[in-house]
Amino acid sequence: MSSAEINKNEVDIVIGALNADLTQFLTSWRPFFSGFHLIVVKDPELKEELNIPEGFDVDVYSKTDMEKVVGASNSTMFSGYSCRYFGYLVSKKKYIVSIDDDCVPAKDPKGFLVDAVSQHVFNLENPATPLFFNTLYDPYCEGADFVRGYPFSLRSGVPCAASCGLWLNLADLDAPTQALKTEQRNTSYVDAVMTVPAKAMLPISGINIAFNRELVGPAMVPALRIAGEGKVRWETLEDVWCGMCLKHISDHLGYGVKTGMPYVWRNERGDAVESLRKKWEGMKLMEKSVPFFDSLKLPETALKVEDCVIELAKAVKEQLGSDDPAFTQAADAMVKWVQLWNSVNSSG
Amino acid sequence: MSSAEINKNEVDIVIGALNADLTQFLTSWRPFFSGFHLIVVKDPELKEELNIPEGFDVDVYSKTDMEKVVGASNSTMFSGYSCRYFGYLVSKKKYIVSIDDDCVPAKDPKGFLVDAVSQHVFNLENPATPLFFNTLYDPYCEGADFVRGYPFSLRSGVPCAASCGLWLNLADLDAPTQALKTEQRNTSYVDAVMTVPAKAMLPISGINIAFNRELVGPAMVPALRIAGEGKVRWETLEDVWCGMCLKHISDHLGYGVKTGMPYVWRNERGDAVESLRKKWEGMKLMEKSVPFFDSLKLPETALKVEDCVIELAKAVKEQLGSDDPAFTQAADAMVKWVQLWNSVNSSG
Repeated sequence: MSSAEINKNEVDIVIGALNADLTQFLTSWRPFFSGFHLIVVKDPELKEELNIPEGFDVDVYSKTDMEKVVGASNSTMFSGYSCRYFGYLVSKKKYIVSIDDDCVPAKDPKGFLVDAVSQHVFNLENPATPLFFNTLYDPYCEGADFVRGYPFSLRSGVPCAASCGLWLNLADLDAPTQALKTEQRNTSYVDAVMTVPAKAMLPISGINIAFNRELVGPAMVPALRIAGEGKVRWETLEDVWCGMCLKHISDHLGYGVKTGMPYVWRNERGDAVESLRKKWEGMKLMEKSVPFFDSLKLPETALKVEDCVIELAKAVKEQLGSDDPAFTQAADAMVKWVQLWNSVNSSG
Repeated sequence: MSSAEINKNEVDIVIGALNADLTQFLTSWRPFFSGFHLIVVKDPELKEELNIPEGFDVDVYSKTDMEKVVGASNSTMFSGYSCRYFGYLVSKKKYIVSIDDDCVPAKDPKGFLVDAVSQHVFNLENPATPLFFNTLYDPYCEGADFVRGYPFSLRSGVPCAASCGLWLNLADLDAPTQALKTEQRNTSYVDAVMTVPAKAMLPISGINIAFNRELVGPAMVPALRIAGEGKVRWETLEDVWCGMCLKHISDHLGYGVKTGMPYVWRNERGDAVESLRKKWEGMKLMEKSVPFFDSLKLPETALKVEDCVIELAKAVKEQLGSDDPAFTQAADAMVKWVQLWNSVNSSG
């Protein structure tokens, strides 16, 4: 799928600006962002003026805009990496593509720059196949198909809720791994897209992701923050938790989540050894989260995404609340998010 | 992992000979089969003498040998593609690697021949990760790791039961797809191995497969035959069904199944358009099998692979037996297989 075949009116590219100077970032993406509408959300803790090169169709949202839309008390939930969620909230488009501002286009093995936007939209526009595993990867790609034995009744697939892209150079590792393996780089370009099977849990990363906002927008929820997390991805867990919620809700509602291409090239940001000095709370929280999601069963009456998020928040509070205050805060944030979503999206 | 690092005494390479002349096949595999013990099982319906080039450590089993080991009445279950299962039965090794005799070594994107044996053994010797999906593919490969958010308690993985390889050139499609898309060839070399998540169903192919015989040998069961199936893979369902059983039993016992590399190059065999003229029973049988396996729950008392196969056979008879006589025959064959396995493997 080429950029020319995409209905650009259906896509918002959301960028959370943690750095003031977006010149290098946007210049590198110009061939693929051109003609799309960009939503740049400035980290409310960032004091400097943003530097955005000419020639983009861009709306910038700052702390003042956040306060206008969600009120001063709620704007704190959009600090740091979470600022992009504000972009998800105010977008009016069908698809969201979101890429961290320390990533540039990757090159494929032939040396061509990867058009991550088109690949994400292709993934979202084609069905997903979570109910049966296809060993030949995405059967809807050109030259691919369903393998022998794949049930014919499942070959039309289900709607694709999200497309999780991957990373060359600096892979998306956690703080301890990144600190222990400072020299490790991901050089493996795997030429595949696949649907993650239903009931399987996966940690979705916010570094390079796209989703169908009309289908699952309210499930892309900023909620679980680690105490003392910094401005480097490997210290965060919010997107991982959000992804666990999104996957569970997608399974419940009969949608699919894809992973694989497109790749982006991730540059270094932050000091991994410095992170090692901190206690990484994420480890403990994930150990509690996995059995929770594994045994979670949303009620059949939860038919809308919003209902699912509310039910999930209820279960988090009941089952995990006593383990760690971060979970209670996450549950409250999920309820608040649905309220904000309904208020912003009904008034628009 | 190179061939030199493998304990060759732990591996049997099992080849079902559907063609009498194995010269081209074995010559092409010589660099990778050398030093390994080969079990060649001759299709009992094949009349001609086998042609096997010099220089291999090979034991050949014919119809006469089958009758000696399992009795004349049972030898019919090893006709056509099923003949290789006789090799699984009489092997004494830990690992089995099995490749169809119309496949030759594939080339990787750099033009090097793929050592499918070493890659299969590497997959089997390293743990599998079925309980949580790793977006960075096999975390035990060099340069790979667990992605951020992957629970630390699950990073030691579980034993790997089977390694399902893939196919370049002629992909493993079913009869109708192969007949409708006679020109379609698989050219996509995906440089990855991954564990198929627990609870996900997949159709395992016998074309290019390896498994840990000590762990799951009796679950590699020849059982479901389609009436009137021929000597071309796309008309068969036996390996697909066997794979559904193997995956379910592996999930139940806490083992993992991997898919991806190694690739083999599949040459043409058979007339796809001729297959289209036949009614493909496989379609109907798979539609019945999927909800069966999806809802199947083996009893917790089934702790040995043999118990699991017997329990599975019981469930097949009860729940699918009235749908199609092929299922009743499959259930009976599964019970018979366990009896044969116990008798051959205890007497050895």
